[in-house]
Amino acid sequence: MSAIAAGDVVVLVEDSGDRYLLTVAARPDAQRVRGIGVIDSAKLAGAAWGSRLTHGAKTFLLLKPGYLDLALSVERKAQIILPKDAARILYECDVRAGKRVLEAGIGSAALTSALARAVTPGGKVTTYEIREDFAEWGRGNLARAGLSEAVEVKVGDVRRGVAERGLDAAILDMPDPWEAVGSVAQALAPGGFFCAYSPLVSQVEQTHAALAKAPFAQLRTIELIERDWTVGERGARPSFEMLGHTGFLTFARRVA
Amino acid sequence: MSAIAAGDVVVLVEDSGDRYLLTVAARPDAQRVRGIGVIDSAKLAGAAWGSRLTHGAKTFLLLKPGYLDLALSVERKAQIILPKDAARILYECDVRAGKRVLEAGIGSAALTSALARAVTPGGKVTTYEIREDFAEWGRGNLARAGLSEAVEVKVGDVRRGVAERGLDAAILDMPDPWEAVGSVAQALAPGGFFCAYSPLVSQVEQTHAALAKAPFAQLRTIELIERDWTVGERGARPSFEMLGHTGFLTFARRVA
Amino acid sequence: MSAIAAGDVVVLVEDSGDRYLLTVAARPDAQRVRGIGVIDSAKLAGAAWGSRLTHGAKTFLLLKPGYLDLALSVERKAQIILPKDAARILYECDVRAGKRVLEAGIGSAALTSALARAVTPGGKVTTYEIREDFAEWGRGNLARAGLSEAVEVKVGDVRRGVAERGLDAAILDMPDPWEAVGSVAQALAPGGFFCAYSPLVSQVEQTHAALAKAPFAQLRTIELIERDWTVGERGARPSFEMLGHTGFLTFARRVA
Amino acid sequence: MSAIAAGDVVVLVEDSGDRYLLTVAARPDAQRVRGIGVIDSAKLAGAAWGSRLTHGAKTFLLLKPGYLDLALSVERKAQIILPKDAARILYECDVRAGKRVLEAGIGSAALTSALARAVTPGGKVTTYEIREDFAEWGRGNLARAGLSEAVEVKVGDVRRGVAERGLDAAILDMPDPWEAVGSVAQALAPGGFFCAYSPLVSQVEQTHAALAKAPFAQLRTIELIERDWTVGERGARPSFEMLGHTGFLTFARRVA
Repeated sequence: MSAIAAGDVVVLVEDSGDRYLLTVAARPDAQRVRGIGVIDSAKLAGAAWGSRLTHGAKTFLLLKPGYLDLALSVERKAQIILPKDAARILYECDVRAGKRVLEAGIGSAALTSALARAVTPGGKVTTYEIREDFAEWGRGNLARAGLSEAVEVKVGDVRRGVAERGLDAAILDMPDPWEAVGSVAQALAPGGFFCAYSPLVSQVEQTHAALAKAPFAQLRTIELIERDWTVGERGARPSFEMLGHTGFLTFARRVA
Repeated sequence: MSAIAAGDVVVLVEDSGDRYLLTVAARPDAQRVRGIGVIDSAKLAGAAWGSRLTHGAKTFLLLKPGYLDLALSVERKAQIILPKDAARILYECDVRAGKRVLEAGIGSAALTSALARAVTPGGKVTTYEIREDFAEWGRGNLARAGLSEAVEVKVGDVRRGVAERGLDAAILDMPDPWEAVGSVAQALAPGGFFCAYSPLVSQVEQTHAALAKAPFAQLRTIELIERDWTVGERGARPSFEMLGHTGFLTFARRVA
Repeated sequence: MSAIAAGDVVVLVEDSGDRYLLTVAARPDAQRVRGIGVIDSAKLAGAAWGSRLTHGAKTFLLLKPGYLDLALSVERKAQIILPKDAARILYECDVRAGKRVLEAGIGSAALTSALARAVTPGGKVTTYEIREDFAEWGRGNLARAGLSEAVEVKVGDVRRGVAERGLDAAILDMPDPWEAVGSVAQALAPGGFFCAYSPLVSQVEQTHAALAKAPFAQLRTIELIERDWTVGERGARPSFEMLGHTGFLTFARRVA
Repeated sequence: MSAIAAGDVVVLVEDSGDRYLLTVAARPDAQRVRGIGVIDSAKLAGAAWGSRLTHGAKTFLLLKPGYLDLALSVERKAQIILPKDAARILYECDVRAGKRVLEAGIGSAALTSALARAVTPGGKVTTYEIREDFAEWGRGNLARAGLSEAVEVKVGDVRRGVAERGLDAAILDMPDPWEAVGSVAQALAPGGFFCAYSPLVSQVEQTHAALAKAPFAQLRTIELIERDWTVGERGARPSFEMLGHTGFLTFARRVA
């Protein structure tokens, strides 16, 4: 139980917090991992979970990937939805085992990975993405994380309709979520959860206006500000580096 | 599927956001719900999920409770860990189906409810609480939410030892989490997740110091600031009311 | 120098931080001070600055009023511009001795008091206020603070024109500052400072649009979030109580 | 009045917000300005305030420097106290014309410049700096801003005593302000304002402890978080870039 085996997905974590995802091969290989270089993943088999590995000039912790590890190790093609927001989306939209969730669009699949993890076992994530190249990129990240089975990535536009019905939640990361309120209303089960992630206040205003005219209630918008702290010998203080903004989170529930 | 039935746990949500939890009885009853008064829960059977109920002068949405509903409807005996922090804890500690999680102490069981929900099916939450009255109060909230099965509430002190072994995560909401670092280290599996929730900076400093001497890595402390937005006819703005502080979140991972 | 004398303006400060302004009379009187009741101000003469006075059940520090004391002791008819914003306005608009400043509107004259203080000696504040009752109320607060001389309160609408020319700064606290951009541009000297204080994002957007079409440069909008800290025996933490929002501050400079 | 003349201090402001300070020479010269290169300052004479100058590939606004311009144009040898904090310090410590203010240490003289500006006319800033090289560097920045007259820069240690008496305010930007509480208490007039600027929570705690044992009242610590906003065609949002922390501001007043 505490030894790494072939087939395991392992995250290699540097002290700096940088992370790399790897699937352990059954026999010697030469995997190329972005940021690490070439590594023989089979050598990890037999190592203890939570132990350290030295590779070249770097030292890594070998860990089972949690939500955070998955998010921070995706290969990025677009800005990802960060942990502070992803965590809150999972919570507010009650994303857990067995749930059926709609997402649009896939971005770098960082949020998709979290959704896929959360609905397992028994649930399903359906992701609409209008750009074929993003869909493909996202599938790659999902495969690397061993999460392909729980996700269906569709190339399509949620503004033109959603094929699924009776869904538990819908999470929209797109420039004009208000244009999708109608299709999402049809796809959600009564009581289903709606979330839109939007960087601009004007987007929030338009989404609220659209939700107010549709069968939704409990409209709310929040933003989360994360302050990391530096704890050292002489004392603690908020870190000087900080992200000023990501996106506003608008939530609502489908009513009958 | 979209009609409420006997045995269902329903959350009644007011437009104000106030929430009340109810289990629908099989035959006419007279349940006393704090904040609502006496209600015949059997009358809810047959109503559509997502529909509205008028009871006295109030109108409620009838919904399946999500994480947020559970947290905001617990009967409070102590300050609860709020959604912004609870969401992040679930995420950072990778709490999901099948996981075995330690919590100390139970408070009003708001976080416990979220943990219990998240580990279902297949997982287990063990909560240590030093005060018998809090343990009892928490059990009541868990029962109301239909979550008793996934949780074992123990009256005991984690600082004196934890009986469980190989746990996936440990979440400490107690005045001196640093005193429990040793027992938690023994209880966690390699790679297991540690979290302490502390209002004071001095607590954070002491927890970091204890973790640094124990088999933990990837120590980090963050705080989350939540701004709610008011979106009205004339435009949007951050709400004037805001909570200035809840607690700092310290995370770490058990290493080999 | 360190003894209070007749004619002095004194602020009485409670440990709670509540403040009351008083002018010391030359002979025994019975001043009615809102929040304190009737007091014989002449009794303060001869007391040392920085000493304590017991009056009824309360104890006060006797201090020379600073900016903060003036702001927190105005009698409020409208929400005041708070210290965090007032301080920044003085700074960004370079309000100091000798400057000629326009303000609209007067509100409770809290900001007006600060401006009047800052431009003394040699400067002048002109305040346009469309409501006669607010103008009157504001004059009362200025008189109590001994600041009437430095301020001219005009009942008038800055959107319809400003009589003054060559001003150093203009500070607008009104619902539609963009409507005043034209008159303010005429009133300001080249290089003069513009500031609008607005609670809504939509106001900020409209003000920016108006400034972009007028002779202004260096447009910037900021918001300030203030966290008060509680420092106690067991350690320090941010205060639980906090104001979520006041207003956005938009700054610009008049160009040639 | 609106034309630049020899002897004027001018700030050259780029659209990016970068700023450079210059004193206009009476006859052609070749001033070397860090960030701009060599410029003949005499050419600025006769230009209108608020007009634009093209020099090389850059375009500048020619403005009279305000507080902000002075702060952002100092040549930095150490991290400066930023506008959000400097503005609040001036306000809370009632720094204005005629006041006598103590500062320790000088850093890059950014705050010193603001203090000097604010106390003019009639006031005086005395700055204690333990390092001769910082004192010299600060004097250079003050000279460039034309503010040398209002400031006395002393090489000395405020922890060992302050020669001045009856001061209106004392502002400490040093690693151990608690060690200076005694000397500052002696130097301040009754009612005088105390301020310490400290990055660490542990510093705040120690300063509070020292103030509590000395003749000070109205102890308070705050922190200011500044969010800059980006206002564009499509709408507004908080800027992605943000400074996570500068310092905590601790205030108190000297009592009798």
